[in-house]
Amino acid sequence: MSLFIYNSLGRTKEKFEPLHPGIVTMYVCGPTVYGHAHLGHAKSYVSFDVVVRWLRHSGYRVKHVQNITDVGHLTDDADEGEDKISKQARLEKTDPMEISQFYTRSFYEDMDRLEVQRPNIAPNAAGHIPEQIDLIEQLIKTGHAYAVNGNVYFSVESFPEYGKLSGRTDQEALQSGARVEVRSEKRHLSDFALWKKAEEGHLMKWSSPWSIGYPGWHLECSAMSMKYLGETIDIHGGGMENKFPHHDCEIAQSESVTGKPYVRFWMHNNMVTVNGIKMGKSLKNFVNLKDLFNIFDPIVIRFFILQSHYRSQLDFSDGAIRASQSGLEKLQETYKRLVTAPTYSGHLPYEELTKVKLTLQTLEFDKKIKEALNDDFNTPIAISVIFEFIKNVNSVLDEHGKLQEQTAYSAITFLETYAGEVLGILKSREGLMATEGRYGGKIIDEVMNVLLDLRAEARKNKDFALSDKIRDQLLEAGIEIKDTKEGASWSKKSAT
Amino acid sequence: MSLFIYNSLGRTKEKFEPLHPGIVTMYVCGPTVYGHAHLGHAKSYVSFDVVVRWLRHSGYRVKHVQNITDVGHLTDDADEGEDKISKQARLEKTDPMEISQFYTRSFYEDMDRLEVQRPNIAPNAAGHIPEQIDLIEQLIKTGHAYAVNGNVYFSVESFPEYGKLSGRTDQEALQSGARVEVRSEKRHLSDFALWKKAEEGHLMKWSSPWSIGYPGWHLECSAMSMKYLGETIDIHGGGMENKFPHHDCEIAQSESVTGKPYVRFWMHNNMVTVNGIKMGKSLKNFVNLKDLFNIFDPIVIRFFILQSHYRSQLDFSDGAIRASQSGLEKLQETYKRLVTAPTYSGHLPYEELTKVKLTLQTLEFDKKIKEALNDDFNTPIAISVIFEFIKNVNSVLDEHGKLQEQTAYSAITFLETYAGEVLGILKSREGLMATEGRYGGKIIDEVMNVLLDLRAEARKNKDFALSDKIRDQLLEAGIEIKDTKEGASWSKKSAT
Repeated sequence: MSLFIYNSLGRTKEKFEPLHPGIVTMYVCGPTVYGHAHLGHAKSYVSFDVVVRWLRHSGYRVKHVQNITDVGHLTDDADEGEDKISKQARLEKTDPMEISQFYTRSFYEDMDRLEVQRPNIAPNAAGHIPEQIDLIEQLIKTGHAYAVNGNVYFSVESFPEYGKLSGRTDQEALQSGARVEVRSEKRHLSDFALWKKAEEGHLMKWSSPWSIGYPGWHLECSAMSMKYLGETIDIHGGGMENKFPHHDCEIAQSESVTGKPYVRFWMHNNMVTVNGIKMGKSLKNFVNLKDLFNIFDPIVIRFFILQSHYRSQLDFSDGAIRASQSGLEKLQETYKRLVTAPTYSGHLPYEELTKVKLTLQTLEFDKKIKEALNDDFNTPIAISVIFEFIKNVNSVLDEHGKLQEQTAYSAITFLETYAGEVLGILKSREGLMATEGRYGGKIIDEVMNVLLDLRAEARKNKDFALSDKIRDQLLEAGIEIKDTKEGASWSKKSAT
Repeated sequence: MSLFIYNSLGRTKEKFEPLHPGIVTMYVCGPTVYGHAHLGHAKSYVSFDVVVRWLRHSGYRVKHVQNITDVGHLTDDADEGEDKISKQARLEKTDPMEISQFYTRSFYEDMDRLEVQRPNIAPNAAGHIPEQIDLIEQLIKTGHAYAVNGNVYFSVESFPEYGKLSGRTDQEALQSGARVEVRSEKRHLSDFALWKKAEEGHLMKWSSPWSIGYPGWHLECSAMSMKYLGETIDIHGGGMENKFPHHDCEIAQSESVTGKPYVRFWMHNNMVTVNGIKMGKSLKNFVNLKDLFNIFDPIVIRFFILQSHYRSQLDFSDGAIRASQSGLEKLQETYKRLVTAPTYSGHLPYEELTKVKLTLQTLEFDKKIKEALNDDFNTPIAISVIFEFIKNVNSVLDEHGKLQEQTAYSAITFLETYAGEVLGILKSREGLMATEGRYGGKIIDEVMNVLLDLRAEARKNKDFALSDKIRDQLLEAGIEIKDTKEGASWSKKSAT
């Protein structure tokens, strides 16, 4: 079964094969670290995390580089405005480097909680000044860039394919640089800065052949991608808002120097809306992840994100997340039920056996979910396959109360592989047992067993006063007891 | 009360005052990130963490910079051998940058677990190549360095005070560079490399005016300390094994260029021995922190480290750590007992009141512990003050079973301030309640209350069969019940 990826360059699904057999080189645009991460970051990095996980599960060694932008990203895309990190440093009355390291750490904290695997290498722009200066020198040498008044610009006219990714090859693209102030020193309105001379009071600056200054934002990704992954990489990911100008500029800078394709597969994730409205600074409707994690388990947010496709818009609303939450609880409960279900190693009578086997059909589900993930990482379909699967697990367990050993093993493996390893939405067995949220950990299990045994014995002895008392007092302590055919079970009362 | 710090430069305790009122600039030599951290790292960073915490508690704003060495640290100190990170990258078949980022992350994981506060800025050497090249250029310009065959060396003869920190100003110091191979291109045996030309196959290298190469190890600390903290800093910390050559080289590089004192207070922590023997690569007796954390709670290790002074050797042995563990448990238990102790707001009869007040004497203890910490951060004495204090708390509680509100408040504040905020060895109230290790969190408390109530009632009704059964079954589940005058209490049986 082959993997097909929607390539933004060409706008069609293409069969994926890496340039070098067995190894996938992948670069994802990382955050500009001047504030805490929001839901838009989560959508992007959770999406690409599943890409990495699925490629690794499929047997590839993935070399995943994701940068940290800590210099050069101006408040305005058209080479004007203030450096975003310096601005924040001034607000917080500290050094830009302290700001960028603080928010870098905050970013990874949030990503760790979302179960996003760390990139293999996370290079920062300010730590790669020599590499960026080298690239500028090569661009000047090959006639693709020019220095003027201490600034260096890329000449878009020197690269006829400029705009090929976004499709803005016409005047629209070539003039979009003009939307604020026209720098008369540019030869063409759309030329973009590779190096900027530091103005008075600018905090982050370095020596260069042209001026004491700092690199343009687009430059870092070309320099660091080529340093760590080579001149042509397999996959480049990022948010669709970065297609133009950022990614088209990356292509221009890199291909002008190497004469080779910079990226084989371009992948772009769609954006997040809040109650139907685009998230934006001016609208002040950014959903901060740390705030969200105060209300919802991060794994619920991850699950919520993966319930829509990475190329679809994700609409945030409280109701939508609550729906995800109860869906996820169902998954966790089924998983817990499965790992604790009684099994038997012998055979059921033929008729029953057939029924059980036919109902679970793990291999069938395995095929379906692989198809979904190989079809441009279709996580919503993959999730629907998992839910169909757990529905069957539950109905088998409801009917038979137990599972044949081998069937149980396959079913557990199925969930741990796809919901766990690939999608990252399943709490591990250990995690599930130790979680303080819903289940109280091992000690509590043992203590509850003592209590439930006492109560069972009281009921057997028809001492209903005692058994009711136990039930009532537990209820007061926030624990509900449910009596079933197989005995009593307990759960923490949900907060009201 | 003034703070006195033992200054390795001058070898005497000096009264500490920062250069700029209210702000302390502090640089601590960070790890070379090519392997997991060991107990030696823990000793150093826990020690300097208390320095930072005490300075902050004393009202200073501390700007704490701690570097990450990810390039240039060779396997041999005398400018020969292989780069430690490149060597590890070859062993692990990956990029040096992936190695250094992996072990950087591992380092902070361990430090976080040891409750070591993160530095304000943690710059890495490979991310500060331009700054290092700038410094070399200034050293060449001022006649303190010379280039030869693409290498640049610092000329120790140009800096007559070379060796002033370690005291090795004689032939011993000036010749120690000679202990492996004599580079004939050096003008003096003790000259040390600022820049090295990359040999064939060298992985980490950058363009420079002298060659494609990499910086010498000593250079980064001078360049990054001066970049982020200024030409003269208040405190520079590090392990005593770094006094020579590393710190003497830093002084030479920095003071040659600025003509100003580089560091006002040099602080060096002593080393770790294992059962009396020095920890060392060749002896293969390094105690890896991750291994240690599998056996002991990291906070026990922190406590163990602080039980000896930072300038004393710390001898690791299983027995010593177990002694720390039971000491720390006593502290945590007393703290828990204190925050849950019944209080009264009124007055006791005069006689009793006097006794209670005299016995606690929080202000006296406060003065004693401040004296200890202001005397060159004497943590073992500070800890002995805390233990004297908790002994008194326990004896008051044993005798009276309750505390006057204000007394309880002062006692809690004392522990939270010194054992918590300053020494970092006290689990927070929340942490203590939620800990799975010893106490099982809130749900377990409530469920245990239900069980203990049942048992108390059974005993009242002389139903000893039931009460014994509850006790026995809990014991089987690993929980011990203790009957006291004030009722039953429970604790988790320690593992045997």
